Parts: sequence; structure tokens; C-alpha cells
Amino acid sequence: MRLLEELCRIQAPSGNEKSLSEYLLNYIEAQKVHWRTEPKVLSGEQFQDCILLVFGKPRSAIFAHMDSIGFTVRYGNELVQIGGPSIKSGYKLVGEDAQGKIECTLQYDEEAHALTYAYEREIERGTELVFKCNFRETDDTVQSCYMDNRLGVWSALQVAETLENGIIAFSSWEEHGGGSVAYLARYIYEHYGVRQALISDITWVTEGVKAGQGVAISMRDSLIPRRAYVQKIIGIAKASGIPYQLEVEGAGGSDAKELQYSAYPWDWCFVGAPEDNVHTPDEIVHKKDIESMVALYRELMAKL
Amino acid sequence: MRLLEELCRIQAPSGNEKSLSEYLLNYIEAQKVHWRTEPKVLSGEQFQDCILLVFGKPRSAIFAHMDSIGFTVRYGNELVQIGGPSIKSGYKLVGEDAQGKIECTLQYDEEAHALTYAYEREIERGTELVFKCNFRETDDTVQSCYMDNRLGVWSALQVAETLENGIIAFSSWEEHGGGSVAYLARYIYEHYGVRQALISDITWVTEGVKAGQGVAISMRDSLIPRRAYVQKIIGIAKASGIPYQLEVEGAGGSDAKELQYSAYPWDWCFVGAPEDNVHTPDEIVHKKDIESMVALYRELMAKL
Amino acid sequence: MRLLEELCRIQAPSGNEKSLSEYLLNYIEAQKVHWRTEPKVLSGEQFQDCILLVFGKPRSAIFAHMDSIGFTVRYGNELVQIGGPSIKSGYKLVGEDAQGKIECTLQYDEEAHALTYAYEREIERGTELVFKCNFRETDDTVQSCYMDNRLGVWSALQVAETLENGIIAFSSWEEHGGGSVAYLARYIYEHYGVRQALISDITWVTEGVKAGQGVAISMRDSLIPRRAYVQKIIGIAKASGIPYQLEVEGAGGSDAKELQYSAYPWDWCFVGAPEDNVHTPDEIVHKKDIESMVALYRELMAKL
Repeated sequence: MRLLEELCRIQAPSGNEKSLSEYLLNYIEAQKVHWRTEPKVLSGEQFQDCILLVFGKPRSAIFAHMDSIGFTVRYGNELVQIGGPSIKSGYKLVGEDAQGKIECTLQYDEEAHALTYAYEREIERGTELVFKCNFRETDDTVQSCYMDNRLGVWSALQVAETLENGIIAFSSWEEHGGGSVAYLARYIYEHYGVRQALISDITWVTEGVKAGQGVAISMRDSLIPRRAYVQKIIGIAKASGIPYQLEVEGAGGSDAKELQYSAYPWDWCFVGAPEDNVHTPDEIVHKKDIESMVALYRELMAKL
Repeated sequence: MRLLEELCRIQAPSGNEKSLSEYLLNYIEAQKVHWRTEPKVLSGEQFQDCILLVFGKPRSAIFAHMDSIGFTVRYGNELVQIGGPSIKSGYKLVGEDAQGKIECTLQYDEEAHALTYAYEREIERGTELVFKCNFRETDDTVQSCYMDNRLGVWSALQVAETLENGIIAFSSWEEHGGGSVAYLARYIYEHYGVRQALISDITWVTEGVKAGQGVAISMRDSLIPRRAYVQKIIGIAKASGIPYQLEVEGAGGSDAKELQYSAYPWDWCFVGAPEDNVHTPDEIVHKKDIESMVALYRELMAKL
Repeated sequence: MRLLEELCRIQAPSGNEKSLSEYLLNYIEAQKVHWRTEPKVLSGEQFQDCILLVFGKPRSAIFAHMDSIGFTVRYGNELVQIGGPSIKSGYKLVGEDAQGKIECTLQYDEEAHALTYAYEREIERGTELVFKCNFRETDDTVQSCYMDNRLGVWSALQVAETLENGIIAFSSWEEHGGGSVAYLARYIYEHYGVRQALISDITWVTEGVKAGQGVAISMRDSLIPRRAYVQKIIGIAKASGIPYQLEVEGAGGSDAKELQYSAYPWDWCFVGAPEDNVHTPDEIVHKKDIESMVALYRELMAKL
């Protein structure tokens, strides 16, 4: 879990994924020679801060978003949200401006709807702040801010080790409404004819999806994937013997939103471990669900 | 109205349009040899469950969505909505899971905002339920669930009989936010250069649009079509002598949303009969409005 | 400011930008021979009512929306909004229907949420009404309805005079959710490989952005542009010595929305003068902010 911890510690709120992107490019460069198949690595201005890994003759693509929720400094000590972070007075936030590194405290006045920071000096306008990382591991669980979605990224990197045919896309802006998957989807469809997607992201522990009972296959959230594709995925999962749970929600979304509305006929399905304490500094995931997430992705990328 | 009744009886909620798509493909295969012009039929994985019919040298395209509103079984006896169905305790719902065919009853507890079904056994997670069809016909009206939009599909099939130049697109997901028109629009624009659209769908009886007074031409809903195109359509309608009504709304939407936001310069206009009891099992449409809908589409496809 | 006044007086609500588009095409035709570089002018049905000006070898594009907020006549004396105009009883509205020119009065009954007009006769269904223009100029300010965004258009025309390499796009529908930038962005990217955008539009005077202190560079609004691109722009502004202010908001949007969600990897940044009395007939802008807006656009188009 060393790699996962390092991923969780990197500051990369939506719109500024650069540091994580550079970390991943270095990691991939160093590791890819040890992987079963060496992928083609696509990055650079044409992909903004995103990365595409193309293995063999791809039939399906994994999308894992790099960005996290956070806060932007507005005027005075005001904050505005990046995505939908949990808001609770006392959370520790970190960042950096021209005057140096920052560790400050979130303050929320519910009555006035006032979101501010407490710090010894004024922080520069536009500075980004993220949750301070407190990475915790037990025999059964891992816990930290940003399991969503550093764990989805981590899982994709595990899958990369043995992947023979397929694409892995590391995307941006997911927590704040999207903005990269549309062009990644176009590029992939036009260059490789691929239109089958798996969304490698983290979902919620609920009354229907419990910690430790396997990776969740989402039959729907606020959007509804094409039934025939979801059934194919459930069929592969069933045959594999890997533990999984079926999720059915009326809310929530993911990178799939951009695939659903894209000008290319993508099929998609969200497949990911569930977490508790969603969008707080204390997101917690059961290790068995991480295990089955990686195992199911390996199976799906081989069989789809 | 036999064909319309059959269309209304087919289960095809957003995301699972397959049964209706197969029914239409069979119907088209059997009928097209009797039509004035035999269309090219485009379908298959590249179009998911959608269908394109291309007649002669097309200048305009009709979009008719196949999907309907409904419900998905969540956990226990909970339901989540597909699109925006009317919710009233007592509505009969039908569906099927691995244990067999289902006919159950909708329950809505307004205070608890709890949407559930009553049935003799637990229904499998993710099962789709739709309104039970009770098709009723009088001298003046037809009534059933899903007139929206089986009537729009039916009308397009009537137009197909004599169409010489044009495209008919049967689309998916309209009731749940869309997801197919974006790629159909791209395909049509790129392959045929067509950018004029008519939305063959059903609208609302209101204080300004009355049952029996003609098909509605919508000047706007939540979106605003390009005025020059709407005026051209109104001009053709006026000259034709076919009864029509002008609609002006600030809410509501259609497949046009995806055309408006597409990366291709589509003009669009919603043209459809009005119904009462919108999104209930009792949607009712006046036969005169159905007649003028088909007549105006024939005129528009010839003149646009 | 004669040209600005003429632009403010032209009726062009979202969806009916034709009159302004024709005015601009005439203006450009007459003026372009006097500009440092004569641009290629792209317009016509393929661009609906939009216009593209292509100068030299472009690296960046300015987007300035032509359309304005307004109202559509519904049934009886009801009105529905085009975009989000300020609503206050007594505002003068103008328009035209088949019976002639109209000058009527807005009425708003807050309790009944009833938006109507007062006029001597019934206005035809679907007629568009806009604020009556009262253009006012002092030594320091200009004031009128529709500074947003006739001033953004005007500024782009000033920049055109000396532009050597770049694209200027005059867009439609911005005030009502968009609908043209998606295809303009595709066209520009495919034909010129350009993916750097500046949004030439008007923002708000707030506690952090004051009138007279320089053009605003927006670090974010409801959407978050890529940080690396915004930093490049701030760097150019800083080096130039031109007065500017940094804006950070959690709400509001612009033509950038369509760039953010487009299937092409556009970078974008909103750069525009702030106004007070937003979306009323009395929008007011400081002349110093207009000056620095034009100056900064010249610098950015040269340096980006």
C-alpha cells in the first residue's frame, strides 16, 4: 500500500492535476518494462494533464480520474468548493502560495453559510487547498482522504502489470463536472475503435452495498448504462467466482457522464470498491473489496 | 391503431430499448418493400439499440425516441425512477426477473418520500418495471401509458410509407437525459451533411395548446431553437392548410437538447401532438392531432 | 463609443442573433481593409448566425457572444425568460410582431410568480422582447442594457484592428445555456489546430473585483479552467504592466462551459471588464476597465 499512500499525498484538485500526472508518468516510465505488455504512453498538451496507456490491440478502456475535491481561496478568508467536499469545522487543509507552504483549518458557519479558513496570514487569492493526508492502515482496511480516486488509479496500475490488450485512461476534472473524458473518448474511438468502458472509481457503502463483501458493479446511478452491456459484465463476474455486489442508485455520477453524452456510442459500467465517510479526510475501504476490484478488472479486461 | 397498441405494450425503459428496437427492425424489414422509397437501414453495435432509416437524398431528419419512463428496483422493496414518471399509489407495474413475470403495485409515502412496490415476493435488485398497459380507443381519442413516445414512433412510421428523401432516427435514453442523439447527429452530419431536425415527440395540453386543435409546433421550451428555422417551419405549416398550434414554454425538453449542444450546427424544432395526463398510465391524445401530426410531417419533409 | 451604442441598440436575444450578425458582417466588410491584417471571414448556414474571423496563422481564439437576455411572449400577457434577466416591474421592453413595433412595460407579481407585460393590445405568441436601450456616457463610465456582451463584442473588434495571428469567434445562445461554441470549437480545432481560448465577456463588480481597477482575469467561476493555462495568462498580464484584477467565484458561467465539455482539449480563461447592475437595463462599466480589457487582449493574442 506504499504506492497508494504516495498517491493520496499528492495535491491534485480538479483543474490542477499536473503533479499527479507527472508522478504517474515517472512511475509508468520506470515500471512499464516489467509489465507483461509494454504500453504506448500518450500524453502532452494535446491531452492536457491526462494520460493514455495503450496495450496490445485494445477492445475496452478503463477510466480512472486523477483529480480530487478541495477548496479555492476567494477574497479575504473566504473559500469556495472544488467539487463536493464534506464541510466540517476543524478539518486540516494544506496548500502553497508564493509566500510558502500552508497548513490551515476549515471553518464553517452553517447559519451564515460562510465557508472560511483560519490561518496566521491571508492566503493569496485563487490558492488551492486540499485535505491534509492522514494515511491509516489496519489488517482489514485502508483509510485516508482521497481514496476516491487514488485507489481507482492504484487499481488501474495493478491491472496494468498483466494487461495484454486494453486502454487505461487517467482523466481530469471528474470531481468538478468533468472536462477531459469527452476528448479522451473521441481520441480512443477514432484511433482504436474502442467503445467499451469501465469506470475505475470508488462508490458508497450503503444499506445495499456493504464493506468487505466485494467490489460493486453499479447497475445505475443518476445515469443508466445500456442494460445489455451491464448484463454482460455481471455475467463475466458471476462466472469468475470473484466476490461482487450489485449497486442500484438514483443519484451520484462519474466519468461515465461524459461517455453517456459523447458523440460516440460508448457503453460504460461503473465497477469499484465501496467506501465509507465519503468525501471526508477519513474515507475508508475494506481490503477485501480492493482485492476483488483488481481481480475483477483483470477478468473483465480479458473477457470483454 | 393496432400497430400503436403493440408499440405501447412493449417494455423499453431508458437504457433497455432492445425489445422495441428489435420489434421495429422486424416491422421495417417486412414493410419497407411496400413503401414508396426503400430506405437504407442502419443498426447494430455501432448504433447501440438505435436505428437510422435513410431515404433517397436526405435534407432533414426526424428524431423519435423509443424509450419510456419507468422504475428500477433498488434494495428491499425500494424503487428509483427512470426519467420522471407520475407517482401515485395504486399504479400497476409490470416487469420480469429470473424468477418470472411480475405484476406489482406502486406505493408512494409522500411524507417519508418513500417509493416502493407491493408484491408477494422480493423482486431482484436492478429489475426494471414499467406501467401496465391499458390501451383504450374512442372515436376521438387514444389513451394508454407511453403515448409519449410510441405515438411519435408510430407517426414516423406512417411518414416512412411515402417519404422520398429524408432520415428517420429512432433514439434511446430521451426520458432519462439523453445519450444517443449526440452520436446519431454526428453520424448523420458527417455522412449525409444533414443538419435540419424535427423532433417527433408528444407535448402537453395547456391553456395555450388544446386537444383537438392540431399538432403543436413548439417555438421554445426550456431551450430556444434558432428563430429563422422555426419561422420557416411555421411558414410551411401556414401554407399547407393543415391545423396546427403554436406552443411557447419555459420548461420541458426533448431529444433536441443533444442537438442544441452538439458539435455540429443542427437546427431543430419540436413538432408533436399534445397529450393530457402526461407521464401517467393514462396519457390521452386526440385523433385529430395525430392526423395533423402525420400530415404536417409529410409536408415538412417534402418542403424543408 | 458610437459603435458600442449601435451594438447595444440592436435586438438579438438568444436564438435570434441574426440582426446583430448581419450588422457585424457589414461592419467587418467595410473595415477589414483598414486593419493591419485582413482576416478570412467565415459565415453562412454551416455556422448558423455565428461568425469566425481568421487572422494570419492563429494560435489562440477569442470568443465573444452576440446574444442577449430577454423575454418570450407566452399565452395571453404572460412572459417567459430568455436567459436570466433582472425582473422588476416598470422596465420598458421593446419588440415587434406582425402588427407592428411594440414598446410595453414589464410587470412582476412576486407572490404569484407571475411575469407579464402591460400593453394596449395582445402581443403575438412567441414574440421576443428585450430591454429598451437607454445609452448613457460620462467621463468615466458607459451605461446601457446589454453591455454584457456588446462590450465584449466591441472589444474584440478593437483587437481585430491590429491582430496579426488569431481567431475571433462571435457566438450565439450564451445567455440561454449555449449551443454554438461546441461546433465553433470543433471547426477551429479541426481546421487550425487551435486550442487556446479567451472568453471576451463581462463579469461582476464584487467585494473582490472593483470598478476602475482593471480588467478581471477569472481564476474560476462555476467551472475551473486548467491552472497551468491561467497561470500563463496571469504571467503575461503581470509582465505587461496593464492593470488587472484576479477574480475567484464559485458561481457564474460563460461560453467556456462548452469548451470545457467539448470533445477537443481546449484551454480557456475568462478575461473581461466588470460591470455593476448585472442583467438590468442599467449595466454600467468603468472606462478604465474597458481600456485595460482591450490592451490586455492585444498583449495576450501576441504572446500566447
